[in-house]
Amino acid sequence: MSHTIDLNADLGEGYGAYTYGADQQLLSLVTSANIACGWHGGDPGIMRRAAALACENNVTVGAHPGYPDRMGFGRRFLDMTPREVTDALLYQIGALEGVCRSVGTAVAYVKPHGALYNAAARDAALAEAVAEAVRSFSAGLFLLCPAGSEMERAALAVGISVAREFFADRAYRRDGSLVPRGEPGAVISEPELICRRVLRAVQEGMVEAVTGEPVAVKLDSICLHGDNPAAAALACRIREVLVENGVALKPFAGGYHGR
Amino acid sequence: MSHTIDLNADLGEGYGAYTYGADQQLLSLVTSANIACGWHGGDPGIMRRAAALACENNVTVGAHPGYPDRMGFGRRFLDMTPREVTDALLYQIGALEGVCRSVGTAVAYVKPHGALYNAAARDAALAEAVAEAVRSFSAGLFLLCPAGSEMERAALAVGISVAREFFADRAYRRDGSLVPRGEPGAVISEPELICRRVLRAVQEGMVEAVTGEPVAVKLDSICLHGDNPAAAALACRIREVLVENGVALKPFAGGYHGR
Amino acid sequence: MSHTIDLNADLGEGYGAYTYGADQQLLSLVTSANIACGWHGGDPGIMRRAAALACENNVTVGAHPGYPDRMGFGRRFLDMTPREVTDALLYQIGALEGVCRSVGTAVAYVKPHGALYNAAARDAALAEAVAEAVRSFSAGLFLLCPAGSEMERAALAVGISVAREFFADRAYRRDGSLVPRGEPGAVISEPELICRRVLRAVQEGMVEAVTGEPVAVKLDSICLHGDNPAAAALACRIREVLVENGVALKPFAGGYHGR
Amino acid sequence: MSHTIDLNADLGEGYGAYTYGADQQLLSLVTSANIACGWHGGDPGIMRRAAALACENNVTVGAHPGYPDRMGFGRRFLDMTPREVTDALLYQIGALEGVCRSVGTAVAYVKPHGALYNAAARDAALAEAVAEAVRSFSAGLFLLCPAGSEMERAALAVGISVAREFFADRAYRRDGSLVPRGEPGAVISEPELICRRVLRAVQEGMVEAVTGEPVAVKLDSICLHGDNPAAAALACRIREVLVENGVALKPFAGGYHGR
Repeated sequence: MSHTIDLNADLGEGYGAYTYGADQQLLSLVTSANIACGWHGGDPGIMRRAAALACENNVTVGAHPGYPDRMGFGRRFLDMTPREVTDALLYQIGALEGVCRSVGTAVAYVKPHGALYNAAARDAALAEAVAEAVRSFSAGLFLLCPAGSEMERAALAVGISVAREFFADRAYRRDGSLVPRGEPGAVISEPELICRRVLRAVQEGMVEAVTGEPVAVKLDSICLHGDNPAAAALACRIREVLVENGVALKPFAGGYHGR
Repeated sequence: MSHTIDLNADLGEGYGAYTYGADQQLLSLVTSANIACGWHGGDPGIMRRAAALACENNVTVGAHPGYPDRMGFGRRFLDMTPREVTDALLYQIGALEGVCRSVGTAVAYVKPHGALYNAAARDAALAEAVAEAVRSFSAGLFLLCPAGSEMERAALAVGISVAREFFADRAYRRDGSLVPRGEPGAVISEPELICRRVLRAVQEGMVEAVTGEPVAVKLDSICLHGDNPAAAALACRIREVLVENGVALKPFAGGYHGR
Repeated sequence: MSHTIDLNADLGEGYGAYTYGADQQLLSLVTSANIACGWHGGDPGIMRRAAALACENNVTVGAHPGYPDRMGFGRRFLDMTPREVTDALLYQIGALEGVCRSVGTAVAYVKPHGALYNAAARDAALAEAVAEAVRSFSAGLFLLCPAGSEMERAALAVGISVAREFFADRAYRRDGSLVPRGEPGAVISEPELICRRVLRAVQEGMVEAVTGEPVAVKLDSICLHGDNPAAAALACRIREVLVENGVALKPFAGGYHGR
Repeated sequence: MSHTIDLNADLGEGYGAYTYGADQQLLSLVTSANIACGWHGGDPGIMRRAAALACENNVTVGAHPGYPDRMGFGRRFLDMTPREVTDALLYQIGALEGVCRSVGTAVAYVKPHGALYNAAARDAALAEAVAEAVRSFSAGLFLLCPAGSEMERAALAVGISVAREFFADRAYRRDGSLVPRGEPGAVISEPELICRRVLRAVQEGMVEAVTGEPVAVKLDSICLHGDNPAAAALACRIREVLVENGVALKPFAGGYHGR
């Protein structure tokens, strides 16, 4: 299996006078930055500063578009039509691209945010809407999504590149899908166990299912969080363990930043 | 003087269930469409439909960014810093560019909207902020602005192309500036007088000042309105008079649409 | 059966420069005005003018709160928690009450808008959230909702008054529920048939089910629409037929306006 | 002079997932809480929690309405008409009142926020618009504003009660007005000096002008800040010094909460 991996995290999610997350710290850890696009979080100035920091840190920039629901931070399902989703993504990807141009970088991939990510992972029509937006914007963009999701299928169907994301702190089922939040054991909290699972997934392409069996997993990137001090500490530790074990950290869409 | 002229109008300014203006009719009259970018008006779907219609009608697409004040339709001055204005314009121009990509066109110029247009016409720092956003987005974009304005100066200073706009229904002073709204005679309402003034401006580069003297005017485009039936009828009539008098209608930034 | 009935319609749903619906005309027809509260539609000035017109026309004012989704006009389901719904309604009812105070009227009832209305009609937890907001704001307010809905049940459970709404242009099933939109025959379009059904419902408390049987219906109000000229004409005709047949038009929450 | 004083602070200014300020800590210090109303900051849930905390701490609730500019946190001047300002305030005061009803308290006073506060302090027409909104909502509400401001004059002219605010960390001129920010010595940063000035203002109604002379000041309340740890520490210290010197802390609009 690959001994190279990408690390991604959500950034630029503040708004006006509101700060959110640990942008500066995360940008020293990740190789890919999912930058909010102004709908669930982010404003033009915050987006520009996040993109500039990414550029300085040699971090690839991705668009992180969400539902038009700032009050709910894009975490509440909103029943948009596929056509509305495609339009909304083109708008947001373009907006980030515009901002990126002033700091010498460009959007290299797209990862939908929050409830839109979850909906498009499960719903074929929404997944096609997402893939269509990415393809329309530029056939060279990657879609960052869960392995085995409707988004992965839709992206491959329209011929755009896919990067698959591994969830460090989530339990997997025998079929490679996540144990839904709310079910027992869905979230793993022990840091060293998380690190061992991440390392095995990267080195062997395997994870132990919640039922005990080894399960094959495809992964191109690991999602890190920085919303609170514990999450940021865990992100640090995951990176450390990977580096100590000879895993090279490299953006999946490497050639784009700094163009 | 030039016997070629561009006609521009604001389009795509509806929002969600709200319609605004006579997009379809105006697109059969103009050569350049200033499409709203979602802040003072416009949403991704409305912007896409306006861009698609522009494309079908061989009309060049421009970005029409405004203040983040949908409730005031971008008509109220908002005290943004120059840096905030630059970021806001990059965001909005990029957003329209994103939407345009799905219908096979692209942004060819920028014309700020409403109170932002007025502020940047007068204020050098805001004008530089606007010019900087246009240049950062793409050095190939035009800035559509009033002749003699701070925007014109700022655009020329950073090396981007300028298109100068003539106001068909407004009186001019001896120095080439507009008689401010509110002063006597500022707005001209007689349709045939308006048409004669437009024709003379296009054919001779001259307009009669409010004080009676002939004044030289530079113009690359004439702004038409379609907010109400009378405005739309006048727009029709202006175009008719120009065509009858052998003036060729041609976008100032012609090569961009349909790329 | 009662030979008195209320007529209600949605009003004040414009926003800033955007107009929507035929407020002035509808206010000459209805006895109760559901005024938008600024989230799906409406802004403070538009709300004030609608409330002032209602007051002048002796029309009772109700709050018409919706989801925080202006782009979707409150017509798209948004997965808010019951607690969020209660807070959102208190905010919006209060906002309209504030505006009403400057024109000498007050909020007398609440009718949720669009997708929130539909969700709260079916979902017991959301219905309780709506009823709780109404009761907390003032135990004297009515809730305007469909007969037999979860909203009706929840309102009666917390001890607030209910007004039941009849849908003039919709087919009913044998159990008194509406034929869902999308099913054959769900919407009735023939104006005279609509008027006969309304009259029978008011005079006999009966409507013919889509399967042919007579069904008992409870109704305190009939919902009229004014979004387009045909709807406004039908609203006129319904009122005319009722008046010609001796039905008295009277707000269900009559004593509130002008207090 | 009065040996009783009110302490006020801005609260409930977060939004959705965004937190802002030290609500909980400030509520243990102040006697009056200026709660944001959802336009520059605040959402219904955050407003409700702030109002509930105020109630538990025996703190009087005031409305803290601002410009519709969440991106700028209400700190940027927006050129609204007086009529728009009145409507906007009625909307926001009412919205907070609605939320307060669910936690057993009520709005007792109004203090405009940020750029609106500054504009209405200087501009007579805007000040009248603010006073008119307060009076229309309820003649029993206080307006919290600077002594000697246009807001004070307008409030007295329409017969509503005024509470005057002293700025602990700002220098005063001989005429009782503030030294404008940006001028040398406008802001005082030494905590013990600030405390001495506050105490003298409360006990003697006097403050030393920037030019050295003693100046009479009227004050009913002192504004505390909690945006950062240093501000919160200073707020604590000011309260401490007042209490140690026998000054009683008491809301200027005391009878309202818990009604």
